[in-house]
Amino acid sequence: MASRRVWCEYAALPDGVLAGVLISIDEGLIADIHVGPDNVPADAEQLCGLTLPGFANAHSHAFHRALRGRTHRGRGDFWTWREQMYRVAGKLTPENYLALARATFAEMLLAGFTCVGEFHYVHHAPGGEPYAEPNAMGHAIVQAARETGIRLTLLDACYLRGGAGRPLLREQLRFTDGSAARWAARVDALVDAPLVRIGAAVHSVRAVDAPSIATVAKYAAGRSMPLHAHVSEQPAENEQVAMEFGCSPTEILARQGALSSRFTAVHATHLIPTDIELYARAGCTCCFCPTAERDLADGVGPSAELRAGGVRLAIGSDQHAVIDPFEEMRGIELDERLRSMRRGTHPARGLIDAGTANGYRSLGWHNGGRLAVGSLADLTTVSLDSVRLAGAPLDGLLEAVVFAASTGDVSTVIVAGTTVVDHRAHVDIDTVGELRTSISALLEGK
Amino acid sequence: MASRRVWCEYAALPDGVLAGVLISIDEGLIADIHVGPDNVPADAEQLCGLTLPGFANAHSHAFHRALRGRTHRGRGDFWTWREQMYRVAGKLTPENYLALARATFAEMLLAGFTCVGEFHYVHHAPGGEPYAEPNAMGHAIVQAARETGIRLTLLDACYLRGGAGRPLLREQLRFTDGSAARWAARVDALVDAPLVRIGAAVHSVRAVDAPSIATVAKYAAGRSMPLHAHVSEQPAENEQVAMEFGCSPTEILARQGALSSRFTAVHATHLIPTDIELYARAGCTCCFCPTAERDLADGVGPSAELRAGGVRLAIGSDQHAVIDPFEEMRGIELDERLRSMRRGTHPARGLIDAGTANGYRSLGWHNGGRLAVGSLADLTTVSLDSVRLAGAPLDGLLEAVVFAASTGDVSTVIVAGTTVVDHRAHVDIDTVGELRTSISALLEGK
Repeated sequence: MASRRVWCEYAALPDGVLAGVLISIDEGLIADIHVGPDNVPADAEQLCGLTLPGFANAHSHAFHRALRGRTHRGRGDFWTWREQMYRVAGKLTPENYLALARATFAEMLLAGFTCVGEFHYVHHAPGGEPYAEPNAMGHAIVQAARETGIRLTLLDACYLRGGAGRPLLREQLRFTDGSAARWAARVDALVDAPLVRIGAAVHSVRAVDAPSIATVAKYAAGRSMPLHAHVSEQPAENEQVAMEFGCSPTEILARQGALSSRFTAVHATHLIPTDIELYARAGCTCCFCPTAERDLADGVGPSAELRAGGVRLAIGSDQHAVIDPFEEMRGIELDERLRSMRRGTHPARGLIDAGTANGYRSLGWHNGGRLAVGSLADLTTVSLDSVRLAGAPLDGLLEAVVFAASTGDVSTVIVAGTTVVDHRAHVDIDTVGELRTSISALLEGK
Repeated sequence: MASRRVWCEYAALPDGVLAGVLISIDEGLIADIHVGPDNVPADAEQLCGLTLPGFANAHSHAFHRALRGRTHRGRGDFWTWREQMYRVAGKLTPENYLALARATFAEMLLAGFTCVGEFHYVHHAPGGEPYAEPNAMGHAIVQAARETGIRLTLLDACYLRGGAGRPLLREQLRFTDGSAARWAARVDALVDAPLVRIGAAVHSVRAVDAPSIATVAKYAAGRSMPLHAHVSEQPAENEQVAMEFGCSPTEILARQGALSSRFTAVHATHLIPTDIELYARAGCTCCFCPTAERDLADGVGPSAELRAGGVRLAIGSDQHAVIDPFEEMRGIELDERLRSMRRGTHPARGLIDAGTANGYRSLGWHNGGRLAVGSLADLTTVSLDSVRLAGAPLDGLLEAVVFAASTGDVSTVIVAGTTVVDHRAHVDIDTVGELRTSISALLEGK
């Protein structure tokens, strides 16, 4: 976290892309920005290409990485996919989860994500017995983040039931603390640390009864924590909530005091117009996970209406079918094009904001996601030297990067002033090797 | 085209993926396939990863590559995009088109496409005056393909009018030969050559009147040429045809004798059920261009119904918003998931067929797109050494590659037995440099 200077060939500043930008970093923050110096200072590291604020992956389930490429046989829907996912969740231990989360977070860094919100609900041993250390699983995730150098918000999720009036399935027993009060008691033992922030989550209105939602919301409010929830990913969730309460999941969350500027609705795919009004009024964020929602046949959320209503959008790779911030950002606009048959609902600048500042804010890092003095010194540099971006217009680099870049174009990643990805490789971690080993260990018990 | 042998760590044979496959190549064809040799022969080149039949890009407009990243400002739809595209089309010359097509075809090879169908309609000088050599533009495309080593079908398109009863726009004058007979006379001078095949195209039912469609169809039938047409990409096309004829564009093509097993309907987005029956009965192919159709806000075509009806699907990158066969293949299934909220309509094997054998067939290369004795020796090897594919199941490599690979994973590409991409680089061409130079030359007249 010593002080250093980097010289960016191009940098995406809040007011636009500029050439020749010298960024001074001190104590993990951007201390100064100097546009157009006459010479590149000898002590400055040169970042060739377009340097952007690092991307925030505002919704991750790290262990889903093991499922990549393994869920595409046979027919099915979200719910049959969930059965496969539960089989993997059942195999997690603090040890194999540390290894898999470490490899997955390293893959995120290689893709340009500098910050991740891990939506964490596999708390206890299979069957539901707490580990000797009740936060053993959460600690494994925190340790994985520390070892890779990614900024983390651990969104510890309350999970209490299998649906309205339905007991937990056997596979869900390890998710629950039994009550919101016991959830809160466990979470109380988790503490913020450098690059680590603790947040709260209601798994979903399916999995948490209304009074318990209020308990979680109150707990998060008392500690000014981010609060996330899966909302209306599938029509079946809306139907169940309508049967139980005669309203939408969003309306339930609102009634229980969950909505605020600290609240993020994850997916927000099947919203009704009043839901959008509720989010807009409370200053909430909606986190779209376009690659996951397309993969899981969820449908396309109302990004145009949310934008028109002034609701901030963020992005997440969720199940990690792919880990690629460019795919997530452009997915918001491209899926809206399929839905509306109109182009240009979300300008590139807005999609970059969804991938950066809005995600940081959603995860409780309010000074992150911008290349501005006082902001977190989290930077991602996209090389312009690939066939994908060759010929990109210098006066339209944001458009080119958002709509055509791929993770292979990410050359350098800096978190809190420290370089964690250099020349397209993690500085410490054999990411490919660790992905292979950790996935094999988890799935085959090796 | 000398004989050689390659040893594949894994190979996608028609019956499935097998490990340790020795492929003998002679005169540009696969002469022998030997599974599981005891040793890797000393004379065999080793291809590490999964070797697939090379991909066919069954629908390309090479010059659209210059537009990448340049069409995302402001609002609009397909038709406003077309205005931008026409401005670029107006700048083409045989010289700058050769340079741009060469760079674009090289980018396709790097992405694993071994064969391209260039849907070519910019025939004459701006204003419509023929060049001294009437096929100067077509020759430029053929030369570009030869110089890069990609297999080409030049689909020479007839273009006669600006819409039903509408004259050509000024920008469209260079597309037309004035009549189908004069189109045929010009095309007659184009000849097949090694790695080059001449095919025919009706630009669209918008751009060619019904009697002229019949002329083109008859011409193509007489020479057993592939015949392609843009069909029902936009609802406005259907509406115009309904006003003129009271039926669908597909019905018009059928009445004019265009449908046969040599016919490919490009896009086929807004079909009606009887269109699908017509295509099924005639043994046609439908070429989806998922990245272009999503980018251009066209909508999602009825891939499930076409598959159920037994209509072959192929893929094309069309406007080259990206050039990535994996994105196109998985896009067919992923967009269907968004449309139907069901997973698993198109198994990975079917998507691979769309990307390989079906595309080759659509382009008139009936012995291409399969790793089988007697087939064209066009091979694409996907490395499994990236973070994207790390941990992929060995018994599910096709699924992993289709749903998670990226162009950066393509390590080796062989066309007609000759290596054209080695270690992720074109053996002869500085692709990035040529893309930059040719796009700059075209757009800025440099």
